[in-house]
Amino acid sequence: MTKRVGVIGGGQLARMMIAPASELGIEIRVLAEQNGMSAKLAATATGDYRDLGTVRAFAADVDVVTFDHEHVPQQVLRALVDDGMAVHPGPDALQYAQDKLVMRQKLAEIGVPQPDWAGVSAPDELQAFLDDHGGRAVVKTPRGGYDGKGVRMIASAEEAADWFESFAGERILVEELVDFRRELAQQVARRPSGEMVPYPVVETVQKHGVCAEVFAPAPRASERTVELAARIGVTIAEQLGVTGVFAVELFETTDERLLVNELAMRPHNSGHWTQDGAVTSQFEQHLRAVLDLPLGSADPVAEATCMINILGGPAGAEIDDRFARAMRAQPSAKIHTYGKSPRPGRKVGHVNVASDSIDDAAYAARAAAAHFD
Amino acid sequence: MTKRVGVIGGGQLARMMIAPASELGIEIRVLAEQNGMSAKLAATATGDYRDLGTVRAFAADVDVVTFDHEHVPQQVLRALVDDGMAVHPGPDALQYAQDKLVMRQKLAEIGVPQPDWAGVSAPDELQAFLDDHGGRAVVKTPRGGYDGKGVRMIASAEEAADWFESFAGERILVEELVDFRRELAQQVARRPSGEMVPYPVVETVQKHGVCAEVFAPAPRASERTVELAARIGVTIAEQLGVTGVFAVELFETTDERLLVNELAMRPHNSGHWTQDGAVTSQFEQHLRAVLDLPLGSADPVAEATCMINILGGPAGAEIDDRFARAMRAQPSAKIHTYGKSPRPGRKVGHVNVASDSIDDAAYAARAAAAHFD
Repeated sequence: MTKRVGVIGGGQLARMMIAPASELGIEIRVLAEQNGMSAKLAATATGDYRDLGTVRAFAADVDVVTFDHEHVPQQVLRALVDDGMAVHPGPDALQYAQDKLVMRQKLAEIGVPQPDWAGVSAPDELQAFLDDHGGRAVVKTPRGGYDGKGVRMIASAEEAADWFESFAGERILVEELVDFRRELAQQVARRPSGEMVPYPVVETVQKHGVCAEVFAPAPRASERTVELAARIGVTIAEQLGVTGVFAVELFETTDERLLVNELAMRPHNSGHWTQDGAVTSQFEQHLRAVLDLPLGSADPVAEATCMINILGGPAGAEIDDRFARAMRAQPSAKIHTYGKSPRPGRKVGHVNVASDSIDDAAYAARAAAAHFD
Repeated sequence: MTKRVGVIGGGQLARMMIAPASELGIEIRVLAEQNGMSAKLAATATGDYRDLGTVRAFAADVDVVTFDHEHVPQQVLRALVDDGMAVHPGPDALQYAQDKLVMRQKLAEIGVPQPDWAGVSAPDELQAFLDDHGGRAVVKTPRGGYDGKGVRMIASAEEAADWFESFAGERILVEELVDFRRELAQQVARRPSGEMVPYPVVETVQKHGVCAEVFAPAPRASERTVELAARIGVTIAEQLGVTGVFAVELFETTDERLLVNELAMRPHNSGHWTQDGAVTSQFEQHLRAVLDLPLGSADPVAEATCMINILGGPAGAEIDDRFARAMRAQPSAKIHTYGKSPRPGRKVGHVNVASDSIDDAAYAARAAAAHFD
C-alpha cells in the first residue's frame, strides 16, 4: 500500500500499530513526546502535541492523522481540519472523549442509558446529589483523567473540596454509584464513509482503577446483553461521528441493564485480546478504519481469550529470566511488551491466551503474567 | 526484553520478524543489502554480507546473529564464531543448506529417506544415471539455487551440457524424478540448548517452481504421515545441529513414502500460514529459538489455514484500490505485503485465511489474492 498514517503520541497504542502496519505495507509515522518512547521504532518526529506548528509539520507528510491518546487540544485538531487534513477521529467526535460532562450531556440527548449524573459547581450542589443518591457517589474531573486518575469515590461533598478549589469556575462531574454485577466493554470500528463493525462484548476487571483482566467474549453473557452492548456501541459511534476504533465501557447492573461508564476513541486496553483472539486486531482495524479501507472480520478465533495486564514489572537484571520462565511455563501465552521502564502499577505489557475454555485461558494468562509481577 | 537480534539480509523474512520482535520487546537490527529493502524499518546497516568487515561490525552490537537467507559464506560465518559470536543457525548446520550435494550425502549417512541421487562430474555419468532411472531426472546446481532457479528437469545429459561447462570441476546433483502425489513441508524449531517443537505438517503447491499455496495442517494426512513427517524434521534438525526455525520439503509418494526434497534453515514460505494460523508464528518462534528462549506452542488456532502467495502484482496507480477490493470481498483475509516493487512472478506478499474448513479457507484466500494478480 502507498498510504502513510501519522500517529500523534508515542505510547504503547502507537507501538502496537507498527506490526499490522508493517504487514499491510502501510507506512506509519509517529510524533512522539520524547525520544525512547514505546513506539520509537516508528518515531519520525519528536515534539509537543499541543504545539500547532509541531503537529502541522508532522501532519504535512501523511495521508491521515490519528492518535495514541485523546489529549490533542481542540484548536490544534481544528486547525488541521481547516488545513484540509484527514483527522480520524476528528475534533467533533474527540470532544466527547476529552470532556466527560460534554459526553454525559450528549449521551443524554441521544438516549443512551447511563448512570444518573450532574455537573456541579459548588459543594452544596454536590451534597444535594449525594443526598439524592444514598449518600455516596463518584466524582470525576471532566478533563485529563485516565486509569483511575481524576476519579474519586466520595461519601460527602467535603471529600471533593480541593477539586472545587483547583477547578474553580468549572463544573465537576458527579455520577451515581452503580450497583453493578460486572464491567463490560464494547468495541466498534467505524470508517469515515460509515461502515461499522462491532467486536464481541468483553468482560473487564479493574484493579485500583486500572484495567487488569479481560475475558473475551464476555463469559455467560445473554444474547440480549450481547446485542444490546453492540447496539449501544454502534449508536454512540454513529451519533458522535466517531472514526477509527472506539470503545465504550459499560456497567452491567444486577438487574441486567447496561449503563455507559466511559468512552475511548482509540484502540483500548479492553481490546488488546484481539491481537491473538480475533481475526482482525483492533490495531489493524484502527488503521483500516482511519484510512477508510474496508473493515476486517471482528470474529473471535477461539472459544475464549483472556488478557492479563503486566503492571509494574519487569525490572532489574533478571528481566530475561522472567521472560524465559513465563515462556517455559506457558507455551500458549502471547507476551506483549511496551518497551517501558517499570514503575509500580504502570502498565508495561500484557499477556493474551486463546483457548477452548475461558478458565484454561485465564489460568495460563495469569500464570504467565505472574512471572513479571 | 533486553536482547538484540541481528538479522543478515533485508528481505521479507527479516521484515516479518519485526512484528513479533516489537511485541516481545526484542530489539531487531538488520544488515540490508541496500537501502529501501523489505525490512527497511529495522535496517541499521547496509552492506555486503560476503564482506567479513561489514558483517563483523554489524555483529559487534547484537546478542545473536541470524539470517534472512542462507547465502553468507562459510568463512564469514566461521570468523564470527571464532570471534565468540552466537550465530544461529551456525556454519556447521548451514553448510547443508548451502550445498545440496553435501546435504544429500549427510541425509544418506543419517538414514533419512530421500530420492535416488548422485553427484556427477561429466555428461556420461549423468547419462548413466538417466539410463538407470527411466530416462528422466532432475539436475540441480549444488549451490545458489532457489525458487526454481538452478533446477532443471531433463531427459538427456545434453540438456545439462551448459552446466558442465559453467561449473567445470564441480559436481552437479542429479536426482530421480519422484512419482509424488503431493508435496508436504515440515517445520521444526530447535534451540541451541536442544528443545525442539515441530509444527503440523502442511501441504504445499508449487507453480513454476515457486511455492504458491499452502494448506495447513496437510488435508487428509494419515496419522502415520503426520508422525513420520515430524520425525524426519526432528531427526534432521538434531543430526545436522540446526538452530532456529527449519523447514524440510517432502515428497509424499503415491505409495505413501516421504522423501526429502529440500531443506531451508530459516523461516520459510511454507510456514507463513503460522502468522495467522498457529499460536506461535514461525517468525516469533525463530527469534525465541535463536535467543535460546523456551519455544512457543506450534498448535494451530483453527481447523484449517490456507496461505496464497501474491506473485507479480500489485503495481500501478491503483494499488490502493486493489487492497480495498480484496479487503471488502474477504473480511477474514489477512494480507501481508513485503514492500517490494512488483515484477512478474516475484513474491510481493501473501494472504492467509484461517477457517473451520480448508475449502472455505482456500476459497477466501484465493479470492483475496486474486485481486492483486
